[in-house]
Amino acid sequence: MEIAELGEFGLIRHLTEDIETKNAETVKGVGDDCAVLDYGRDRQVLVTTDLLMEGVHFDLQYTPLKHLGYKSAMVNLSDIYAMNGRPRQMTVSLALSKRFKVEDLEDFYSGLRLACDAHGCDIVGGDTTSSLTGLAISITCIGDVEKGKAVYRSGAKDNDLICVTGDLGAAYMGLQLLEREKSVYNAQIREARQRGEDISSLPPFEPDFSGREYLLERQLKPEARKDIIEELAKADIVPTAMMDISDGLSSELHHICKQSNAGCRIYEERLPLDFQTAAMAEELNMNVTTCALNGGEDYELVFTVPLAMHDRVSAVPGVKVIGHITKPEMGLQLVCRDGTEMELKAQGWNPLKREK
Amino acid sequence: MEIAELGEFGLIRHLTEDIETKNAETVKGVGDDCAVLDYGRDRQVLVTTDLLMEGVHFDLQYTPLKHLGYKSAMVNLSDIYAMNGRPRQMTVSLALSKRFKVEDLEDFYSGLRLACDAHGCDIVGGDTTSSLTGLAISITCIGDVEKGKAVYRSGAKDNDLICVTGDLGAAYMGLQLLEREKSVYNAQIREARQRGEDISSLPPFEPDFSGREYLLERQLKPEARKDIIEELAKADIVPTAMMDISDGLSSELHHICKQSNAGCRIYEERLPLDFQTAAMAEELNMNVTTCALNGGEDYELVFTVPLAMHDRVSAVPGVKVIGHITKPEMGLQLVCRDGTEMELKAQGWNPLKREK
Repeated sequence: MEIAELGEFGLIRHLTEDIETKNAETVKGVGDDCAVLDYGRDRQVLVTTDLLMEGVHFDLQYTPLKHLGYKSAMVNLSDIYAMNGRPRQMTVSLALSKRFKVEDLEDFYSGLRLACDAHGCDIVGGDTTSSLTGLAISITCIGDVEKGKAVYRSGAKDNDLICVTGDLGAAYMGLQLLEREKSVYNAQIREARQRGEDISSLPPFEPDFSGREYLLERQLKPEARKDIIEELAKADIVPTAMMDISDGLSSELHHICKQSNAGCRIYEERLPLDFQTAAMAEELNMNVTTCALNGGEDYELVFTVPLAMHDRVSAVPGVKVIGHITKPEMGLQLVCRDGTEMELKAQGWNPLKREK
Repeated sequence: MEIAELGEFGLIRHLTEDIETKNAETVKGVGDDCAVLDYGRDRQVLVTTDLLMEGVHFDLQYTPLKHLGYKSAMVNLSDIYAMNGRPRQMTVSLALSKRFKVEDLEDFYSGLRLACDAHGCDIVGGDTTSSLTGLAISITCIGDVEKGKAVYRSGAKDNDLICVTGDLGAAYMGLQLLEREKSVYNAQIREARQRGEDISSLPPFEPDFSGREYLLERQLKPEARKDIIEELAKADIVPTAMMDISDGLSSELHHICKQSNAGCRIYEERLPLDFQTAAMAEELNMNVTTCALNGGEDYELVFTVPLAMHDRVSAVPGVKVIGHITKPEMGLQLVCRDGTEMELKAQGWNPLKREK
């Protein structure tokens, strides 16, 4: 169905009419000038926002819209968890070029709603408009945290342990894999065109990713670590500092150290890696440590806890201690497998930085 | 200065480092995974968001970036007032193509901050990233309202008076004027090119708008009606329904009537018009009533109050009673100057609707 048949208000109604809000804190959701929320007296409100642009943050040639909806929600949910909070509400704005159909938006929303349902988050509003070129997605997520329990980037102290969840670098390897297969496919199309063949008879872009499913899943369907926030609460651990890993571990450690006025030492041998990540890095002749440190899009958590909590934090499933916080004059150091030390550079993903 | 010299984090720091938050409700602003807000027990939280795309919502050929920043803030502030609330915090996301310089962003932010300062709103976060094509601006505004005082679209009752603030249609006339001058200028450029002249020697795009300043100001520098919300509170008036006029009065009345299960009658002769609007409409051979009803971007308020409040609401400066709410079966009617009635059509601005 053409979006123009529904128009803006018709489209919003179509996509949101059966959304039932789940949180008592959501007084009024979609359908007025604003959403109305009620948080009571004992909680603080968290707000985070992300703007995702086609061609910069995602490639629709290999990203199904349902996955894109899911991931767009996840990257925001992840920021709420990174404050030790719980997501409650989300607004979703889309700018669409003419090539999108209503069914495409239904796919996007089905992924978005799957993510929100899994994380108990209500969709309460947004904006749907047109774009002259690609798709733009802007999501704002609102959450809450008990007063005094918000975890900032600035609280890391000398000797605190540095912990990360899950494993790193897999989403980046998934991206490399998708980009490689896309190049191969596009080259086939070009060659067929040059030979004057009918390209519509070529098979669609469906490369075989068997054995690499984990890498693809990490790239296309990341999971925000709700479970870790719940486990930390159960273990009565409030981290001293925390961030989610979106731009890469190195970049996030730079933020934490800068804002905490600290340095850090992390150990290469302690970096959590999946087997598929290591195998793919070798195949692509890339350094797997660099991928783990700078790949980004892991949507894992990096956090610090006092040294005395070593045993308690080590017992939390999915958490690994990878180093410790130091005095600021020690800088940010990576201790390599051979015992040498290297300065940890923030080479994470930065779309506005000049390429060297 | 090139944005690439600063990179994402450098740019954000540069644009936000001297922002001081003004509201006690802002616990933590720019610089972490989320902003942290505290609203206490007696207030509800309002959230609204807008996504503005270059070429769809604004034209940088005649929109200075400072004005664009100001207007981008205003359209969101206006939604908070439309709920009878007060704006408190704002997040600002920008996607930038390569042609923008740091100075451009400084201009944008100076307008944005001017608007936020005038309305007591803290800038608490956002996202800055790159775009392959034009500029995308996504703003989320958060406000608060005393419990029980939020005004929805759905509360209008039979016989309620329909009130509008300010005057209508001027922003639309301003847009027509700018578009006309742009066409004239671009035609001059084209002709000079065809004659093989050096177009850099042509004067810049600076048409003479004397006598039309009000129309331009309404288009380029709209004002959200904080003053009206304050005056209504002073007069102890809580409207039964309210919206801000962004898509055009007709479109907004359709929303109010639909959500309130009501009809309405408004009077052509009561529509508030500025002299410049009427003169410009005549010059362009347009129907001024159509412009007032469907032009949009007025950022005035339309609201309903019980009939018994007639004298009290008429005494509020800048408010005009233009008609009344009816039973739903009466439909939405415009009573023309000659006494005939016409159905009120929602022909407001709708970027996703097919052009007939």
